[in-house]
Amino acid sequence: MARYGAQFGPDLTFLGVDAVDLEDRTALEAADVVVVGAPFDGGASHRAGTRFGPGAIRQACYLPHDGSRPSLALRVDALQDVRVVDAGDVMMPPGHIEQSLGNLEDAVFAVASAGAVPLVLGGDHSIALADATGVARHLGYGRVSMIHFDAHADTGDIEFGSLYGHGQPMRRLIESGALRGDRFLQMGLRGYWPGPETLGWMAEQQMRSYEMTEIGKRGLDACLDEAFEIALDDCDAVFLSVDIDVCDPGHAPGTGTPEPGGLSSRQLLDAVRRICLELPVAGIDVVEVSPPYDHAEITAFLANRVCLEALSGLAARKVGISHDPAGPLLDGR
Amino acid sequence: MARYGAQFGPDLTFLGVDAVDLEDRTALEAADVVVVGAPFDGGASHRAGTRFGPGAIRQACYLPHDGSRPSLALRVDALQDVRVVDAGDVMMPPGHIEQSLGNLEDAVFAVASAGAVPLVLGGDHSIALADATGVARHLGYGRVSMIHFDAHADTGDIEFGSLYGHGQPMRRLIESGALRGDRFLQMGLRGYWPGPETLGWMAEQQMRSYEMTEIGKRGLDACLDEAFEIALDDCDAVFLSVDIDVCDPGHAPGTGTPEPGGLSSRQLLDAVRRICLELPVAGIDVVEVSPPYDHAEITAFLANRVCLEALSGLAARKVGISHDPAGPLLDGR
Amino acid sequence: MARYGAQFGPDLTFLGVDAVDLEDRTALEAADVVVVGAPFDGGASHRAGTRFGPGAIRQACYLPHDGSRPSLALRVDALQDVRVVDAGDVMMPPGHIEQSLGNLEDAVFAVASAGAVPLVLGGDHSIALADATGVARHLGYGRVSMIHFDAHADTGDIEFGSLYGHGQPMRRLIESGALRGDRFLQMGLRGYWPGPETLGWMAEQQMRSYEMTEIGKRGLDACLDEAFEIALDDCDAVFLSVDIDVCDPGHAPGTGTPEPGGLSSRQLLDAVRRICLELPVAGIDVVEVSPPYDHAEITAFLANRVCLEALSGLAARKVGISHDPAGPLLDGR
Amino acid sequence: MARYGAQFGPDLTFLGVDAVDLEDRTALEAADVVVVGAPFDGGASHRAGTRFGPGAIRQACYLPHDGSRPSLALRVDALQDVRVVDAGDVMMPPGHIEQSLGNLEDAVFAVASAGAVPLVLGGDHSIALADATGVARHLGYGRVSMIHFDAHADTGDIEFGSLYGHGQPMRRLIESGALRGDRFLQMGLRGYWPGPETLGWMAEQQMRSYEMTEIGKRGLDACLDEAFEIALDDCDAVFLSVDIDVCDPGHAPGTGTPEPGGLSSRQLLDAVRRICLELPVAGIDVVEVSPPYDHAEITAFLANRVCLEALSGLAARKVGISHDPAGPLLDGR
Amino acid sequence: MARYGAQFGPDLTFLGVDAVDLEDRTALEAADVVVVGAPFDGGASHRAGTRFGPGAIRQACYLPHDGSRPSLALRVDALQDVRVVDAGDVMMPPGHIEQSLGNLEDAVFAVASAGAVPLVLGGDHSIALADATGVARHLGYGRVSMIHFDAHADTGDIEFGSLYGHGQPMRRLIESGALRGDRFLQMGLRGYWPGPETLGWMAEQQMRSYEMTEIGKRGLDACLDEAFEIALDDCDAVFLSVDIDVCDPGHAPGTGTPEPGGLSSRQLLDAVRRICLELPVAGIDVVEVSPPYDHAEITAFLANRVCLEALSGLAARKVGISHDPAGPLLDGR
Amino acid sequence: MARYGAQFGPDLTFLGVDAVDLEDRTALEAADVVVVGAPFDGGASHRAGTRFGPGAIRQACYLPHDGSRPSLALRVDALQDVRVVDAGDVMMPPGHIEQSLGNLEDAVFAVASAGAVPLVLGGDHSIALADATGVARHLGYGRVSMIHFDAHADTGDIEFGSLYGHGQPMRRLIESGALRGDRFLQMGLRGYWPGPETLGWMAEQQMRSYEMTEIGKRGLDACLDEAFEIALDDCDAVFLSVDIDVCDPGHAPGTGTPEPGGLSSRQLLDAVRRICLELPVAGIDVVEVSPPYDHAEITAFLANRVCLEALSGLAARKVGISHDPAGPLLDGR
Repeated sequence: MARYGAQFGPDLTFLGVDAVDLEDRTALEAADVVVVGAPFDGGASHRAGTRFGPGAIRQACYLPHDGSRPSLALRVDALQDVRVVDAGDVMMPPGHIEQSLGNLEDAVFAVASAGAVPLVLGGDHSIALADATGVARHLGYGRVSMIHFDAHADTGDIEFGSLYGHGQPMRRLIESGALRGDRFLQMGLRGYWPGPETLGWMAEQQMRSYEMTEIGKRGLDACLDEAFEIALDDCDAVFLSVDIDVCDPGHAPGTGTPEPGGLSSRQLLDAVRRICLELPVAGIDVVEVSPPYDHAEITAFLANRVCLEALSGLAARKVGISHDPAGPLLDGR
Repeated sequence: MARYGAQFGPDLTFLGVDAVDLEDRTALEAADVVVVGAPFDGGASHRAGTRFGPGAIRQACYLPHDGSRPSLALRVDALQDVRVVDAGDVMMPPGHIEQSLGNLEDAVFAVASAGAVPLVLGGDHSIALADATGVARHLGYGRVSMIHFDAHADTGDIEFGSLYGHGQPMRRLIESGALRGDRFLQMGLRGYWPGPETLGWMAEQQMRSYEMTEIGKRGLDACLDEAFEIALDDCDAVFLSVDIDVCDPGHAPGTGTPEPGGLSSRQLLDAVRRICLELPVAGIDVVEVSPPYDHAEITAFLANRVCLEALSGLAARKVGISHDPAGPLLDGR
Repeated sequence: MARYGAQFGPDLTFLGVDAVDLEDRTALEAADVVVVGAPFDGGASHRAGTRFGPGAIRQACYLPHDGSRPSLALRVDALQDVRVVDAGDVMMPPGHIEQSLGNLEDAVFAVASAGAVPLVLGGDHSIALADATGVARHLGYGRVSMIHFDAHADTGDIEFGSLYGHGQPMRRLIESGALRGDRFLQMGLRGYWPGPETLGWMAEQQMRSYEMTEIGKRGLDACLDEAFEIALDDCDAVFLSVDIDVCDPGHAPGTGTPEPGGLSSRQLLDAVRRICLELPVAGIDVVEVSPPYDHAEITAFLANRVCLEALSGLAARKVGISHDPAGPLLDGR
Repeated sequence: MARYGAQFGPDLTFLGVDAVDLEDRTALEAADVVVVGAPFDGGASHRAGTRFGPGAIRQACYLPHDGSRPSLALRVDALQDVRVVDAGDVMMPPGHIEQSLGNLEDAVFAVASAGAVPLVLGGDHSIALADATGVARHLGYGRVSMIHFDAHADTGDIEFGSLYGHGQPMRRLIESGALRGDRFLQMGLRGYWPGPETLGWMAEQQMRSYEMTEIGKRGLDACLDEAFEIALDDCDAVFLSVDIDVCDPGHAPGTGTPEPGGLSSRQLLDAVRRICLELPVAGIDVVEVSPPYDHAEITAFLANRVCLEALSGLAARKVGISHDPAGPLLDGR
Repeated sequence: MARYGAQFGPDLTFLGVDAVDLEDRTALEAADVVVVGAPFDGGASHRAGTRFGPGAIRQACYLPHDGSRPSLALRVDALQDVRVVDAGDVMMPPGHIEQSLGNLEDAVFAVASAGAVPLVLGGDHSIALADATGVARHLGYGRVSMIHFDAHADTGDIEFGSLYGHGQPMRRLIESGALRGDRFLQMGLRGYWPGPETLGWMAEQQMRSYEMTEIGKRGLDACLDEAFEIALDDCDAVFLSVDIDVCDPGHAPGTGTPEPGGLSSRQLLDAVRRICLELPVAGIDVVEVSPPYDHAEITAFLANRVCLEALSGLAARKVGISHDPAGPLLDGR
Repeated sequence: MARYGAQFGPDLTFLGVDAVDLEDRTALEAADVVVVGAPFDGGASHRAGTRFGPGAIRQACYLPHDGSRPSLALRVDALQDVRVVDAGDVMMPPGHIEQSLGNLEDAVFAVASAGAVPLVLGGDHSIALADATGVARHLGYGRVSMIHFDAHADTGDIEFGSLYGHGQPMRRLIESGALRGDRFLQMGLRGYWPGPETLGWMAEQQMRSYEMTEIGKRGLDACLDEAFEIALDDCDAVFLSVDIDVCDPGHAPGTGTPEPGGLSSRQLLDAVRRICLELPVAGIDVVEVSPPYDHAEITAFLANRVCLEALSGLAARKVGISHDPAGPLLDGR
């Protein structure tokens, strides 16, 4: 569980929050949220580069890195009203996927078992296997539902001869029993993958996947309402996994497998805020930000804001809502 | 009709479909759709670069180039449920526009007259003159209606002393009688061109052009409903011409004459799917993708998906619809 | 008031309109709109580069630079139906912010006092202090309301030890009395700045700020309707300040402090058109376009179109509306 | 011979020198050098984009565009000690290569016959046919030798079915008799084109081509010494044609057919200075700058400096050398 | 040994040479050179992206992909005078470095044992372990000397807990006995890695490493002369390993660990030509081209030319030299 | 003298060396070298962006940020054999040049007067005024000679009405008496600025400026030999000011005023090493790195290596040379 961040540049924390050592149990227990970097792109089937995701997401902000971010919409401070600390990066050598995922799972479990919410910054989506397993090891296999934003179902079986990769974590999670297929909610799927066989397997697991056409017709909020109900049915907590490619490539070009026709960044931010505000979220990952394909850091900025919306939601859930985000911003008018 | 693709890189086929020779009549007749590359930017009034469009569109996909693309939304395979083959690029030297358009028209006619749908990858929009004429030569002048997605009307008369160029093909098509002005449907126009004189000419031809303000107010689907009715009135088939600049530059930066305020990529993909599913499409072109101005290939990916949505629509029209694209993706939930 | 444009490249006018000298009172009086360049980025707290904004905005168009732009939607010519001239750039050395703002304020006042509408091309948003003050000096302190598109409130107090900078102009304008706080309308705010203290100050001024969540829920047009009513209440004119970062970074990447989750470019263009068509606009600035962070000039194109939509609105307000922009584009269909 | 520059942006002159009209014979006769833009890329066999070359070269400078450039090395003013004016761009529609070259040849002839040196800014290298022919029409066929910097011999015969293109102008010039093969000096060739047949044709013409290996072994200055002797043997003047791809792609990435292993920019600048200082140069072109492939304008800056070194050399030849460029820069030390 | 290339785009061959199947022994035996793609970046310690190296190198050329490249300097055809075929890419999943290197080693051995020269396109430098071992398995451990162009010694011991990675292959090769330390020639080292301990190990192995300061003082050719002598002393063949980062980042920006102060591309091309012309080269790899960090493909073009210079040298060695590359290019002058 | 770095991202130290507080006199006195960031671009006459220079230079390295960099060539550790600490950034608001330079001068003086060498990371070159003045305040006006690498003389008088800016610091330094004109050595000048009047002033000051033509003819080492002699004549120490634009834009594109025809990065690194090894260097700045114009960080990497070569030279001067950098890298061969 040593810090690995130094391989890819300086050792930073998310927007200047305090650093924490994963072996410092007391410090973990004092935290509400622990940021964990997963600089791993050894699971990517196409473009690499997400190894630089954690570093990019941590610093993609034009404001001072001072450990404070007051949300205009929710009127809470995303870094102060919850106690957020940063454990740095997990050692994840790109050519060693199984060892890397093992290291990450242990780190996530350390956080979760200390009672904090792990916020894992990817990295490619293969890390979701470690992230959600680490949480389920603490909260119980089958007790955590999943809300998964993505253009892709990530339920592939064997790819390139391997069980592990960024197109397969969701299948592994269900197969292992860490998560229940019938509490698996996918938002934003589209395109031309996977094929009928895999879709058949998914249907057998009773997964609920919202393709973009359905979202376009019903509206994202209606789909979320329905999904929330399923998520809370006989589960204790929710894991939120956000693949940045759920957004349209126009909003998130810096990613490995961009699929046109996705959500706008506004839609994603609103949805993430709702989830963390309305549901008992126990773990989060934000993945597939690939800085070498980004432009003017706009994808990293978006991922940074996904984290902040999630943290704002957690904070408002903790301290209570006193301001209607859809009302006038300022009092008196 | 020789293959010209080798000038601009390796000789590829669209996502790995089989190659076909334009002189192999039997093979053309066996196909449902024949991809034709038109690597021509000699008609561009501003930025060039669309000569690399066909190559970019053919390979802009992160999935294996295996000649199969199962559509999540329609549950058909866009490359298998219709037989798609690729004829390579037509010889179109950039400094010789008339000869180039002639070569292309002959190639498109060869495809159409074999009973297949030509899917022409541009290239700048000057090629639409050859594309639609080639189809009309087979189906009859005046028998094909046009649905034209574009920021620009492309109805200019003489530009830089020439009758040919990417701002003029629609005028030439109507003047020659290949297409009827009153069966010409334009979606997505906006901006500051053309001027009153040309708009007057367009009105005289009884063209129906939907500017973005109208689309914004009425909704794209309502406009399409109306347009479909016109398109099918006393015509036998539809030509679909998609200028990628119909999308907002945020979604499609890699183009020559970007006009802010356009459609989202989601809107375009839905519309293309509907057209190919609901109308008797006899020819398609996808134009104005300019790779040197693209970022992280997002415009090429979008154009590739425009092709795949069109092909999926054609496939579903051929094999029948068994799945509601706006319903739950998976059976049983 | 000397021309300064030559420092940053050739001396251009906006799309080829006539040049004017700020000391030529007669020429200013003959104009409806005078373009003024404010190539200043000495007020930027993060990325610089807006010094190249005026030059980029002036030429970001693929059409001939011929001083004519017929609007498809409004059927007026944005550069002909109002008389638009260009005064070049104001001398604004980047290391001398107070002197620079003083020079600009004098230039804007010269335009306004000649009865023309200044259209100021930024530059960073610190220039709004000079822009709105210059207009208020002519029309009267407290007599001009402000409609302000931005991701940020720009109401900071002291930053880096200075009263001036791109996060503070709106506070200075209210403090000086140039503008009334209760006639200050802000559209598109979002994110994590400013904090509670500043928000408290804003509420005391009775500013009306529309955060994106409110806009998303009520719709932009409804918010504008409400804002228009406030703007016209006991004020004689409106100043329109457009920070391009009000748009989502996907639509406007070339800016200094991008905040995900903003307006689409279509929304901004429609809103600007409405404002200039429906309200008595007396001054405009378009700011925060930073070409070194742009891609394929899409942000500069957008800013150019914001100017043209504003000018089209002014023109239609002047010559009268004869065409419904939401109706069919062409007569007879 | 109308100005065409407005198609591709604003109508600029080279670093702010005076504009001239090609039909104003008196003004041409008063000039020493006339800049002519040739915004043509219809002859490019691979990447396009050189249509934006003239505009880019004219403004690629960080100094004021004030029509003055004092050379440190030669202590003359490159824009004042010779009278330089700019005739704008020639009308060269990209799809009409023969007409375009005809227009350009007429423009160059107009300049040359007025006694001025044409400095033609490309555009792709197909324009050299028009450039050198235009000069030879005035000075006499066979009376002008050629010094040609390029990675490529540009002596192809028929390409894509055409006699015209950027790989063929040198052959056409020799075939027409405009230039003599045995007074044709090529510097910087390398790579894998053309093949044996064309090399055989070149040898028959008694061309003298210096491949990079020879230049590397003997030194560029020694090669130039030898070339100068040939150039002056029974010829009255020299045409200098500089294809920017003679430089290594590291120094000139913004070009269409980059060939690794070329000259450094220092070598090219020194050579151009020598040629214009030591030889009776009667015409110059600088070609193949393709802005869409450039980075941070470094290729455009280089081409701008190639022009300025040429002009400095012409100026020093005119006013006499009073300073040794290889000695101390300042007097007294 | 299945083809894997389809994962990262279309299945191409190097500049259009014939494809070969690694299991077709007869075809391998008929070849002089077999191109093998190693699309692996799981060994990179910093930037990834070299997985796209093989595809980029294969097509980085503006000439027709016709399987012919006549060398101007050597007057041989690099693709015809030696028989070059392309075996496509080896299956190398990024997260599985040991399995990947094993697959590659088998492929290289298959080529070498058929009597052909493997030309391996990387991929990061970890692949050199497989490349040179594959050759040594055929020619004998200790019988092949190594000439290694690189900014880095690549002799690290354990990095990130692993024996395998792009900083360690040279140590593994010497430790295994595949190559002799005292026949290991390194050209172009510089910078700040490795530290004293590793340098001590290298000295113990009697490696001969030429740092840039030595090359700068003595000249590259003198260093090569000396190196050639060592290489041929009691060894039967030479392996040439070219890390593109041996060149200065100005010439080769598209790489993972750029170290300023390197060779020019001209120097590298000349050296590679000499080596393949003068020495019995039995295997070659060209590594560390990372397209996402490239600009205008200049690094890929350089790597393509490194391959062509190597092939030209092999061809001239095979068919004999009839032209002095340092003499006049054309006969008769 | 508060740390200001947090404005532009996280608070980093140069490659992980220890942080120091400028007010901690004891810590400063314990240091050999103190890094000071000067994130100021308010003095730039053209492109901005150097405000991000200090952050970029500090982290532009692919090796672990561990505070150790063993030089291959000199066999010393650049960060260990001298004690290097980092004081963070000085508060330099871009719109307030005089205040900013004052803050910086005080910081540099604090370092120098504690007996350490300040290594200032720019920022534009206007900061040299503060840097060299700060050192001279400690060592005595007129007692420090200057070696100045630059494409530009930076001896302008008044620009844009101001005495301060990046084209003027050298004049101000001589006028104030901080530095002597006849101990001012400039290397690498070229291009078209300044004009005769300023050159006359420079000659009067008896400055010694080496234009690139002289360097090309005599060789850089011979010029340095001569310059060293002047520098040491009746002066006690040397200030080394490196404007990265002394290198050719091919090697250093990320800068504000690139001038083609400069040094290679190899030349600059060798020269900087010599200076710090052979001369009593008392202060250093490295300026004009502008990240928004950089590509793949190659300019930032170069500037980072300029710092490391300087530090290696200082270290070797301190601990003594035991290895000939121009000899074989490894012992025994």
